Amino acid sequence: MPLNNDIIHALRQVIDPEIGRNLVDLNMIHDLQIGADGRVGFTIALTVAACPLRDQMAGDARAAVVALEGVTGVDIKFRTMNEAERKAVFGLSQAPGLPQLKQLNQVQQVIAIMSGKGGVGKSLVTAALAVSLRRQGQKVGILDADVTGPSIPRLFGLASGGLRASDQGMLPATTKKGIKVVSANLLLKEEDTPIVWRGPMIAGAIKQFWTDTLWGRLDTLLVDLPPGTADAAIAVIQNLPLKGVILVTTPQELAAMVVRKAVYMLRDLKVPILGVIENMSYFRCPETNHQHAIFGPSHAEEIAAAAGTTVWAHLPINPEQAALCDAGRAEDLDLPELQVLSTRLVVAA
Amino acid sequence: MPLNNDIIHALRQVIDPEIGRNLVDLNMIHDLQIGADGRVGFTIALTVAACPLRDQMAGDARAAVVALEGVTGVDIKFRTMNEAERKAVFGLSQAPGLPQLKQLNQVQQVIAIMSGKGGVGKSLVTAALAVSLRRQGQKVGILDADVTGPSIPRLFGLASGGLRASDQGMLPATTKKGIKVVSANLLLKEEDTPIVWRGPMIAGAIKQFWTDTLWGRLDTLLVDLPPGTADAAIAVIQNLPLKGVILVTTPQELAAMVVRKAVYMLRDLKVPILGVIENMSYFRCPETNHQHAIFGPSHAEEIAAAAGTTVWAHLPINPEQAALCDAGRAEDLDLPELQVLSTRLVVAA
Repeated sequence: MPLNNDIIHALRQVIDPEIGRNLVDLNMIHDLQIGADGRVGFTIALTVAACPLRDQMAGDARAAVVALEGVTGVDIKFRTMNEAERKAVFGLSQAPGLPQLKQLNQVQQVIAIMSGKGGVGKSLVTAALAVSLRRQGQKVGILDADVTGPSIPRLFGLASGGLRASDQGMLPATTKKGIKVVSANLLLKEEDTPIVWRGPMIAGAIKQFWTDTLWGRLDTLLVDLPPGTADAAIAVIQNLPLKGVILVTTPQELAAMVVRKAVYMLRDLKVPILGVIENMSYFRCPETNHQHAIFGPSHAEEIAAAAGTTVWAHLPINPEQAALCDAGRAEDLDLPELQVLSTRLVVAA
Repeated sequence: MPLNNDIIHALRQVIDPEIGRNLVDLNMIHDLQIGADGRVGFTIALTVAACPLRDQMAGDARAAVVALEGVTGVDIKFRTMNEAERKAVFGLSQAPGLPQLKQLNQVQQVIAIMSGKGGVGKSLVTAALAVSLRRQGQKVGILDADVTGPSIPRLFGLASGGLRASDQGMLPATTKKGIKVVSANLLLKEEDTPIVWRGPMIAGAIKQFWTDTLWGRLDTLLVDLPPGTADAAIAVIQNLPLKGVILVTTPQELAAMVVRKAVYMLRDLKVPILGVIENMSYFRCPETNHQHAIFGPSHAEEIAAAAGTTVWAHLPINPEQAALCDAGRAEDLDLPELQVLSTRLVVAA
């Protein structure tokens, strides 16, 4: 008959692929039973109901346990964690006596990058602003609030699984030049693993990225928001001390309509809009040097007017710069317009 | 002292700007009290807790009531509707004896258009496929599942507020050529009013767009999904009888990574992937006629391989066609590639 400790030890080798920690430490193993005939049974408490990795985890757990001497069979049941259990998993308990996170974290300003519409280049703008500020000697962090479609780690070439825990909180990953990054993709073992979470889980994750991360001393924390005016945007506005929002748009009328929804949401919730950045404004043909307004005429001025602010930049479509981002080399970006306007965001020493 | 009926009549003139129906019919007015001194008090039950239009509605309601003879003051309280009340508002009760929706609705196939990443042109592809099928004499509907960033009504030039109720269910708006459309933007009075809803509300709306709409007889219902693998995607997969999904991507490696998340989600949930359409594959300079791979090399073949399917089309960036969409003229689109491949989706009579 196998020993309880051996089974626990075996299950400690099984990693939740989404979270990157083992099932025992995640408190996912319950009701362990060992029959006199060598049959082992237990329940796996899943963090989400329709966990797409359920079968993979169960297979791994079964293989680990069945390999033990004396085990004749493995029976696995499933249930879903309740809110308190989930909180215990995703929260990080603090050892008593250590300084609290809120004493260690001193963030001078929090600025969100938002558009409402997807695919307008929010993440590129966020990354380029962070890089520009860093080049001016500022301490910069990025909170990637796009939980189901995170782009920031890829732009900086940060490996998946790069977030670690300490006694004082989650430790951000750090880029080559020293920008601190927290993103759902840094929690995954593979960057293309889907995160199939409903809104409340997404809102909870964003809240914890803010409250449970050891950001330390930062001049500026930039928040990269996903498309839409749903859970993620609400969570950021309600839980983070936003100085304001930078809106990103593209010339299409369709994009302008959706960006105006974001403007009206921010206005109703009394969040200041700092400025508007139009991306993909034109493409300069490398052969003729002519500008082509590929996505139509600009609507940036009218969006800025509705938002009670000004247009900060019209950025061209720039295949070379996009290629740098795809290669994880956002820190080599050369966007003079953003470099200039980022000086507006510099925090005095 | 004002009469109860007069107050109700006055409040019937006050419209919830988000839903486009009056507060009385929406059952938002509760605890109406009329004091002997002419003071009127009531509670407005809001459909969502942090309703950004709360103050506007209260202002309108106050103005309507205070204008009545004998009213000396108006006291308005707020509370949030419970789930049952919300359901009663957004659901449509059916008169007894009428044929049930499920007898009237006969939808031959339901196909979702998804990408995971925003801004890749999902809505354009959805609209163009619908138009192509319609040109072949098929009966086509579009369910716009992008609740916070809906694009479909704009592409077809459909006016906001175009959804109406009947005894048998919600009536879709109809395009010039007869495509039936349901979208959150058709519920709004102004297309750029934000819908600040959390995930469960979004999932509930999508479910009702399917179950409570009088779709009638359709050969194909196309579902335009928002970016992400969160509530909207889960709601569509769990509640609609999907024949399969068409994936839309663009050449950027970043987009490919996020689209792969969608592939793995669909695979884990056992939803068939019918094909991959790459949009914005290149731009043909009108002066030199040269193709420019503005967004980098294609990743469509590798996504299709991961999805166990094939690439259906590489669509160019086409400013003229995009301008048609911005002008609400999607039914004039001329995309020969999509016209050809839409024949795969034709349902035999």
